[in-house]
Amino acid sequence: MNNDAIGVFDSGVGGLTAVKELNRLLPNEDIIFFGDTARIPYGSRSKETILKYARQDVNFLRHHKIKMIIAACGTVSSTIGSKPLVDDMPFTGVVLPAAQAACGATKNGRIGVIGTPATIRSGSFAKAIKNINPKAAVIGNACPLFVHLVENGYTQRDNKITKLAAEEYLTPIKNEGVDTLIMGCTHYPVIKDIIADFMGENVTLISSGEEAAKYAQVCLMENDMLTESTEKGHNTFYVSDSTELFEENAKHFLCHKVNGEVFSCNLEDLN
Amino acid sequence: MNNDAIGVFDSGVGGLTAVKELNRLLPNEDIIFFGDTARIPYGSRSKETILKYARQDVNFLRHHKIKMIIAACGTVSSTIGSKPLVDDMPFTGVVLPAAQAACGATKNGRIGVIGTPATIRSGSFAKAIKNINPKAAVIGNACPLFVHLVENGYTQRDNKITKLAAEEYLTPIKNEGVDTLIMGCTHYPVIKDIIADFMGENVTLISSGEEAAKYAQVCLMENDMLTESTEKGHNTFYVSDSTELFEENAKHFLCHKVNGEVFSCNLEDLN
Repeated sequence: MNNDAIGVFDSGVGGLTAVKELNRLLPNEDIIFFGDTARIPYGSRSKETILKYARQDVNFLRHHKIKMIIAACGTVSSTIGSKPLVDDMPFTGVVLPAAQAACGATKNGRIGVIGTPATIRSGSFAKAIKNINPKAAVIGNACPLFVHLVENGYTQRDNKITKLAAEEYLTPIKNEGVDTLIMGCTHYPVIKDIIADFMGENVTLISSGEEAAKYAQVCLMENDMLTESTEKGHNTFYVSDSTELFEENAKHFLCHKVNGEVFSCNLEDLN
Repeated sequence: MNNDAIGVFDSGVGGLTAVKELNRLLPNEDIIFFGDTARIPYGSRSKETILKYARQDVNFLRHHKIKMIIAACGTVSSTIGSKPLVDDMPFTGVVLPAAQAACGATKNGRIGVIGTPATIRSGSFAKAIKNINPKAAVIGNACPLFVHLVENGYTQRDNKITKLAAEEYLTPIKNEGVDTLIMGCTHYPVIKDIIADFMGENVTLISSGEEAAKYAQVCLMENDMLTESTEKGHNTFYVSDSTELFEENAKHFLCHKVNGEVFSCNLEDLN
């Protein structure tokens, strides 16, 4: 048993996908979330910069009492490769859990992957899927605008710009006859309706943030590290830009207010 | 006479609008450019974060021998208000030069302003225009996607997504019958064709980066600070993310390779 919090980080509000699922699966656990909102987006930056930011994010979480770290960011998870960001506590990114879920869901062995330019460039999801099912066909496409559309609230199901971007990004994947699509960036579930409308009802969508949360649940159970508490856990959110901007964006994202305290922290604390 | 370089900074490639114009107007001057590509965009961040980044950008430029600083970034120029970022050498943002150009160009006194959310929220251009011409009507609109469309190369004149975004952002301004439109973010001139196609040929477009360069020319002349050199000046570019990403984006932006050496610098150097 271990009563420390679960640490979760992302470049922005996307990581809340994982927090929401953790709250559902493990309601008594405390969560410490860090969103690097002063430096979002990560997905259009170089490998070196993404790795530097990821290490700083981990260092920030380490200032709190945590028992596990979840990189709830498709870009970071894809860029680190097979080496975990920490070796003294359990760690997961979103790539392996989502790849496993996709391999379980597909019937025809044809899996689509959408993510940021850095994620798709890394080939991380394809590698992970091929390790599980060497016969699977993986069709990936980068969606550079999706993070910005989500962060700026272009999320209504009938939003013309987001629908047009979805059509552009998803057409090559749909044409390949996939039956499963990994949303390889934790921001994408907020425009799930638009993605689903275009892909059609026969395509299963996999939320990488949710799958990471499910993996974390099993991992903590396996290691006997769940909390003893029988009370509802607390969420605490830290962001590198202003709390107001985060709460505004998070409201779009969650369709309700964030449930927990939100603090702003200095980027200098990350060095 | 002063042979030091002119220092120019922006969050990304947008500031090259000013560099290009400086090269044209003052071909013998050396230019030191800093693009904070590891932290772009600035325009969707809080006032505090924008000011912190701007001070760090100035500190970086100060490590070089410079005689003037140009904040070739609409967001920074709008956020600092009326106080210059430095007081020991000439300084300009893009707001006042662009406001002055717009007041000179308008015939019907109706001026549109487009910029990032932070720029429009600040009301900077409207204040500057009203100071010059209290009777002018100013119609502003934020264009949160434009920076991302430009940075990701969605810049072809017939790009459907950019055209749709332009229609959404510019319709309320066009409907107000403006005859002059300030492109209040230095990224926007790269999609000038799309903006012009929508606004129509009777609307004069003002490039805020170019106007800042024109002001800098006069300012250096007035202060007898032009270079003595009769040789072609050198451009030196520093970026906080990788040089490859910058050169790739700059090529889209300039329609040719950057003419000068490009170096990557550590964000830590900015503190």
